[in-house]
Amino acid sequence: MIHVYTGSGKGKTTAAIGAAIRAAGAGMNIFIAQFVKGMHYSELEILQKLPNIAIEQFGRDCFIKKEPTQADIDAAQKGWEKIKAIFKQDKYDMVILDELCIALYYNLISLDEVMNLLKNTDKKTEIIITGRYAPKELIELADLVTEMGEIKHYYNDGIQARKGIEY
Amino acid sequence: MIHVYTGSGKGKTTAAIGAAIRAAGAGMNIFIAQFVKGMHYSELEILQKLPNIAIEQFGRDCFIKKEPTQADIDAAQKGWEKIKAIFKQDKYDMVILDELCIALYYNLISLDEVMNLLKNTDKKTEIIITGRYAPKELIELADLVTEMGEIKHYYNDGIQARKGIEY
Repeated sequence: MIHVYTGSGKGKTTAAIGAAIRAAGAGMNIFIAQFVKGMHYSELEILQKLPNIAIEQFGRDCFIKKEPTQADIDAAQKGWEKIKAIFKQDKYDMVILDELCIALYYNLISLDEVMNLLKNTDKKTEIIITGRYAPKELIELADLVTEMGEIKHYYNDGIQARKGIEY
Repeated sequence: MIHVYTGSGKGKTTAAIGAAIRAAGAGMNIFIAQFVKGMHYSELEILQKLPNIAIEQFGRDCFIKKEPTQADIDAAQKGWEKIKAIFKQDKYDMVILDELCIALYYNLISLDEVMNLLKNTDKKTEIIITGRYAPKELIELADLVTEMGEIKHYYNDGIQARKGIEY
């Protein structure tokens, strides 16, 4: 099954992390790839300690500002090569592609390549894709799509990102 | 800060679990109350093993069908008493009230009582509330509201809830 969590509201990455915890509790093996992100997130240590969750980041230590740099492209491409290798194995029951939609939005990875891989995976791997701006081809292919709509966000009141809450 | 994750799309409880993992990774102490739910969820074991997460369920072993029973009301009331006691302590940095909106929707707990407590908490406790049908009073009070919109769900194709994914 392919899940997509998109939209501008808070909760996309945390929903993917929660899904990983639930799946790990059921004995599944999970691989989490975080695209675009290379920053430290508080969840990393706990996830890394769990024996059946593997997590790797394929981004730089800051978000993309206006235009992606070659380093952004290289990091995402490295991640995509890893994902292709992972789908050739039969090791993981769940593969989480966090912020893949952002990597696609900035053309860091080819949409055609992603769609080609997703169309050819077996349905038994649970694939969870997050990020704003999910392309319509992905929404059409997915089995489940949740749009996280931002009704209200304290960022709009000038509150900054906080450790333990946003990162 | 008060967060509300509502709407009919998948990802509300998993977003709350992910938030708990992130907060735990940052050294925060977290209490998770699950209202309406008493069933076994795969995430429970992993969450229970983490030293700074406490989780308790205040529901029966099945969802409410049509009308709540006295047992549903009693379970939710027991949970609410526990939450009131928790807010009198200063032990937890994050309190997650999973499916509280459902407990309110079925009048298992008084909305006035909930609003009264929430209006009188200090702003430093992070409060995360999930469930469909968030009442408008709660949405007005909250600092952050995400509406999980169901764009697509495989339940509509006859797929049943699966261990490790839905529970």
